[in-house]
Amino acid sequence: MPELLDAAIDGELRTFFADARDRAGAYGTHYEALWESIELQSSGGKRIRPRLVWSAYRGFGGTERPLATRVALAFELLHTAFLIHDDLIDRDTVRRGAPNVAGRFAARAVAHGGDAETGEVWAATAAVLAGDLALSRAHRELAMLPIGRTRREALLDILDRAVFVSAAGELADVVGSLHGSTPALDGVLATLEQKTAVYSFEAPLAAGAVLAGAPGPAVDALCRFGRLVGVAFQITDDVLGVFGDPLVTGKSASADLREGKRTALIAHAATTAAWPSISSRLGDPALDDASATELREQLRACGALDAAIALADEHVTLARYELDAADLPVELRTELGEFAQRATERVR
Amino acid sequence: MPELLDAAIDGELRTFFADARDRAGAYGTHYEALWESIELQSSGGKRIRPRLVWSAYRGFGGTERPLATRVALAFELLHTAFLIHDDLIDRDTVRRGAPNVAGRFAARAVAHGGDAETGEVWAATAAVLAGDLALSRAHRELAMLPIGRTRREALLDILDRAVFVSAAGELADVVGSLHGSTPALDGVLATLEQKTAVYSFEAPLAAGAVLAGAPGPAVDALCRFGRLVGVAFQITDDVLGVFGDPLVTGKSASADLREGKRTALIAHAATTAAWPSISSRLGDPALDDASATELREQLRACGALDAAIALADEHVTLARYELDAADLPVELRTELGEFAQRATERVR
Repeated sequence: MPELLDAAIDGELRTFFADARDRAGAYGTHYEALWESIELQSSGGKRIRPRLVWSAYRGFGGTERPLATRVALAFELLHTAFLIHDDLIDRDTVRRGAPNVAGRFAARAVAHGGDAETGEVWAATAAVLAGDLALSRAHRELAMLPIGRTRREALLDILDRAVFVSAAGELADVVGSLHGSTPALDGVLATLEQKTAVYSFEAPLAAGAVLAGAPGPAVDALCRFGRLVGVAFQITDDVLGVFGDPLVTGKSASADLREGKRTALIAHAATTAAWPSISSRLGDPALDDASATELREQLRACGALDAAIALADEHVTLARYELDAADLPVELRTELGEFAQRATERVR
Repeated sequence: MPELLDAAIDGELRTFFADARDRAGAYGTHYEALWESIELQSSGGKRIRPRLVWSAYRGFGGTERPLATRVALAFELLHTAFLIHDDLIDRDTVRRGAPNVAGRFAARAVAHGGDAETGEVWAATAAVLAGDLALSRAHRELAMLPIGRTRREALLDILDRAVFVSAAGELADVVGSLHGSTPALDGVLATLEQKTAVYSFEAPLAAGAVLAGAPGPAVDALCRFGRLVGVAFQITDDVLGVFGDPLVTGKSASADLREGKRTALIAHAATTAAWPSISSRLGDPALDDASATELREQLRACGALDAAIALADEHVTLARYELDAADLPVELRTELGEFAQRATERVR
């Protein structure tokens, strides 16, 4: 079933982007290239959001696949928009090992005779616009859904909350990284929930359920489940970002350490006696591999690794409790329970 | 009437921002400050877009002011979003003589103990998110309009085109500024139309007319009128940017010359014998006031000033021709005819 769903989403995305590129052609090759770069950015993901939309929709008896596909598309494009604008904020030019929108347009500027400075301007322009276009399309997909007003407006409310809370989380993430401050666990967890769990887990589940006409209390339970499981996934991703196999995670195991990324792992380390030593090296852009290995060992020895894994497990347990306490269709409960389990399985 | 309308729009904006700040409070003072900065950015404008929505709506017999106000609000917030993201692309930190969203957050970072580098990151983050939030709200205002599906979807199509074409224009503007290339008039005019005229003139007029149930051919005529008059306004603004009184325009009369902004004025100058001399100084960030005065005199002497004014006049004439040729209510034709006239009056 996931394969079928992925094919439907990929097909819908292909059609959308083919139309957009066609339409963009009237405005020149650079604009066509911008749309190509949005399409590239939207491919290669794990399609978690579409799958959650679909699980919730089918779980509550929804059968109109084309409707669910459009809602899934909206959340996938929202994700694309956020990735592009997140990279812009972080000044990243690479994602999943390939140049991102900014990286492609920086190279394009140089290929057209621009200097490095011009490359930076083109990169920023492309990233700003690409994110705006993907974000606009996410809104449009839901606004144009051929369903009754009540359900459509409930979906638009879910999208509104997703945008509002994600922006709060993104800002908190940047502001919280102010050099010199010590990361606190509650702040880190609140930021994870706001920045990622709400738009990636809560909102797609709620949207699928609402589209299928699920009762309010069940939707609320899925929202709580989504936030908890979203935090569990994120804590685990951050653990894998430091301790995972780069071949599996697709990113350097030293990048987060060099960046000084403020994760649950690091927030726990900050409560231990090892912190002065850890914090002296964390966030050093020049951290070499040997030092990264030592830092990793310190994070393990001080108990931060175990604590982070335990915290993720705890969130999975709480998430499953929400499933059990709610009045949900049995198959949906089983499917989401298994999904929650996968959040932390990856660190075993 | 414009005063009443401005009061209605200002009231709607105040209510919207008061709610948003309230809601943002749960996510901390920085997020509240972000919303304050969006509100500040949205104030102080000339409210051209709301006025055009209202003129077209009332002109076609519309009487439901609250509906028109919400459509007007959507286009005003779209404008706010584009201003914020345009400033981000141009790396500007000031607008209308005061710090913009980015400028305010750069200062905020420093006030919270950050260094200049942190200030830049906070500034970019705030500008990205503020634009996304305003853009999202523009979409939401139209999507939630309590009107029939056909009209609402027609409004959503107008918004979709506005976003799509503006992004094309913004990209063309940046790409066209590649150092060393000579500006061509047709490219400059196409960019003006795409980047500004469509979302600021065509779309608000079309939206007001569609909301009032105007017939298709009349809406199409307003679209053509809007594009022509939008280009006339923009050519004139660019003339005033070089030859206007800084006390009236609110910006330095040397800024556009220092930036080397590619306008109709400059594109005409590029076709004259004076171009080698003009282009050697244009775009020099260190251009002093005496050299700016000389450059201005060269632009006048080579005929570029007269040509630009004539071109703006020509666009006004063509715009008025669209009004006369279309089947429009008499009062609307008169009102828009006067509006068109004001595009170029300012350079007399």
